[in-house]
Amino acid sequence: MPNPSAAMLVIGDEILSGRTRDANMHYLAGQLTERGIDLKEVRVVSDDPDAIVAAAKALSQGYDHVFTSGGIGPTHDDITADCIAAAFGAAIDVRDDARALLQAHYDRSGQELNAARLRMARIPDGAKLIDNPVSTAPGFSLGNVHVMAGVPSVFQAMVASILPTLTGGAPLLSRTLRLVRGEGDIAGPLGQFASDYPMLSVGSYPFQKDGVYGSNIVVRGSDVHELEQAMAALAAIFDV
Amino acid sequence: MPNPSAAMLVIGDEILSGRTRDANMHYLAGQLTERGIDLKEVRVVSDDPDAIVAAAKALSQGYDHVFTSGGIGPTHDDITADCIAAAFGAAIDVRDDARALLQAHYDRSGQELNAARLRMARIPDGAKLIDNPVSTAPGFSLGNVHVMAGVPSVFQAMVASILPTLTGGAPLLSRTLRLVRGEGDIAGPLGQFASDYPMLSVGSYPFQKDGVYGSNIVVRGSDVHELEQAMAALAAIFDV
Repeated sequence: MPNPSAAMLVIGDEILSGRTRDANMHYLAGQLTERGIDLKEVRVVSDDPDAIVAAAKALSQGYDHVFTSGGIGPTHDDITADCIAAAFGAAIDVRDDARALLQAHYDRSGQELNAARLRMARIPDGAKLIDNPVSTAPGFSLGNVHVMAGVPSVFQAMVASILPTLTGGAPLLSRTLRLVRGEGDIAGPLGQFASDYPMLSVGSYPFQKDGVYGSNIVVRGSDVHELEQAMAALAAIFDV
Repeated sequence: MPNPSAAMLVIGDEILSGRTRDANMHYLAGQLTERGIDLKEVRVVSDDPDAIVAAAKALSQGYDHVFTSGGIGPTHDDITADCIAAAFGAAIDVRDDARALLQAHYDRSGQELNAARLRMARIPDGAKLIDNPVSTAPGFSLGNVHVMAGVPSVFQAMVASILPTLTGGAPLLSRTLRLVRGEGDIAGPLGQFASDYPMLSVGSYPFQKDGVYGSNIVVRGSDVHELEQAMAALAAIFDV
């Protein structure tokens, strides 16, 4: 059985304007790979309701899981929860369970649960809350879409909350052979090798460092024995 | 007249598996913002022909420009050029102008222009070459899609080759006000401010550092006077 598939939807003008460098994609990619869930696509869209709704619908229909980051805080530009509700045709309002979490949190810190903060308790009907041990305001899962915060520490905590609840497949393993030869020199035999091991994924990633051209050959698969055998064959091909 | 719109298509299993952290998105975003071209969407897809063709078609139809990175080297997993040709229904083969560039390059370095390297001269009919001052093998523009390498140094050189040939709009300027107050405290008046300046984009980006919660308020627009006036009003609202 193939591994479950996943997509990520990053919401944020700050990424698209170049102001902020996204950190969540790389983190989620590594976590999903370890869990045996194959990340197949990432989309980054701006803080535009139509764009968010359209992307959420397309990715929800195309993949087993969708993970979103960004746009669930208390300010006017935090529109993700409402957009995901719209994508599923679900009603959304302040929900008692989320409000209770926030009320307890702000009572402890002596702050007021004002109208802005209460926006973070807007949860679509039928959604399941995602625990946020960092700053309390929860994420949620609606259908196969898991809605999480954009602040990296909170995003990572939410990923840690949700991932153990999802069924993974066989973790994808990878091995790398570093060759100090340009891609043009190795492409022929490498292509033959890739054909010989159709169950493995074979990628070539060129590098250039201190004037030296080389290639990292990355071989991926979920069967450790097949992988080790292939790496031995690869080393023999390139005489290293 | 609104600024031209753009999308980016990142091609690469290595990003989606978490092995490599993409660097090109952040670079392109900053360059386009300076040039007055609005980056509206980014998609990252795997080394899968159907996925690449579908994304290229959708983005090409949806935006004024599409910039791709990755998958134009000499190895078996470099399939971007063929996929972009397929997306436009264009024929593709080794083209004389690209072959001549490569032949001269490898003659200089005393290397053989073998079958693998010749793959880098596969250019769709009707495409215009993009200069690669780093490692010679060219990118190309076909229709409104600009196809570039994934290696960051080469990607950046190709961006420098292509951007001056594109018509930009008014550069998007941004100003940031750093507030050492949580988003929940400022969201009310900030939302009102955003409504008062509909021509400006107002974003709030929370941070947490050394136990201090704060927010960076980023205001964007292309009219410097309007922007400065708004920032003065914003400082007055928050008494800083």
